[in-house]
Amino acid sequence: MLKYPKGMRKTESKSPLKQSTSNRGIALEQELNQTNQYYLDLNIAVIHKKPTPIQVVNVDYPARNKAQITKAFYTKPSTTDYNGIYRSRAIDFEAKQTDALTLFKLALIHEHQINHLKAVIKHGGIGFIIIRFSSKNETYFVEAQKIIDLYYGEKRSIPYTWFREEAYLIPFSLTPPIDYLKVIDQLYFEGENNEKR
Amino acid sequence: MLKYPKGMRKTESKSPLKQSTSNRGIALEQELNQTNQYYLDLNIAVIHKKPTPIQVVNVDYPARNKAQITKAFYTKPSTTDYNGIYRSRAIDFEAKQTDALTLFKLALIHEHQINHLKAVIKHGGIGFIIIRFSSKNETYFVEAQKIIDLYYGEKRSIPYTWFREEAYLIPFSLTPPIDYLKVIDQLYFEGENNEKR
Repeated sequence: MLKYPKGMRKTESKSPLKQSTSNRGIALEQELNQTNQYYLDLNIAVIHKKPTPIQVVNVDYPARNKAQITKAFYTKPSTTDYNGIYRSRAIDFEAKQTDALTLFKLALIHEHQINHLKAVIKHGGIGFIIIRFSSKNETYFVEAQKIIDLYYGEKRSIPYTWFREEAYLIPFSLTPPIDYLKVIDQLYFEGENNEKR
Repeated sequence: MLKYPKGMRKTESKSPLKQSTSNRGIALEQELNQTNQYYLDLNIAVIHKKPTPIQVVNVDYPARNKAQITKAFYTKPSTTDYNGIYRSRAIDFEAKQTDALTLFKLALIHEHQINHLKAVIKHGGIGFIIIRFSSKNETYFVEAQKIIDLYYGEKRSIPYTWFREEAYLIPFSLTPPIDYLKVIDQLYFEGENNEKR
């Protein structure tokens, strides 16, 4: 459906994501934040990353009205990382990246995220997962229902070839870097006026 | 519209919220969390509080795979605290409480929250603010547009009497404690089947 011309695909060698392995997850997050900021600035959508949940144990007040947290722990999130509103539809998604060449391990998705996406679909939202194969510098849009079905199947990983068939390659652009709403336009608003931006 | 019978109103003396002033804000948050958990458990809606945004500066690893944050700061949120999906509509709101008897100070609402609620309305979501007068133990549902209009007006506070006229008293119940979706049913789904729960 969203066949992406081979010649336009961003080549690996030029990607800043390739500079360091440890930066890859951060790069995906940064690109999504840039994308969401672009959508917000241009009044296209209002989608934000949720803050990382942290349990605060100790707080000091070295100065008046200046709280400094001195002991805290990361806690497990009960939802996905991103949500918001686009064309009156609730948007909810998780983003994952993998270094693997030939498969995506389902263990990278947590059960609470699966449960949350099930609830999102049930209540009428658009739920999906953005998956980046950093080795190939390809970023896919995967409908949540497809991942949910696979999650409860027998296999513990999804082959890369599956993404080529069943997921949607998000076209690379500079502004915004990950234009995932283009895929949503095609999947959920086909036939409507998608040229307004 | 949502006239709430006087005799049913929860009396102040019985309220656990009255036990301590400092607990009041926490009590409102806890009651909203209980309410949202109830909605989730009964498959009525999927609405969550966003985590408090924290900027992490230092992390120690006292044990393998056990990260302990040793220096961090609270940062300003760019959105409201609560959002989710109900009956295919995106839900987005902020909750505030005041000890004042006769007015609500608009300074309790931050400009970024007003801007966010404007974006929510623009993109087709249901935006509102839940305001508790803890001295009266009354919790009101206020449509975001009304607060936005007042926010850009000349007055810096809203008299309590305004809430009696223009806002909707959320009926008190034990499960859930703050059944704000009842107000949304009346305001946004009037005439539809609201008896399904």
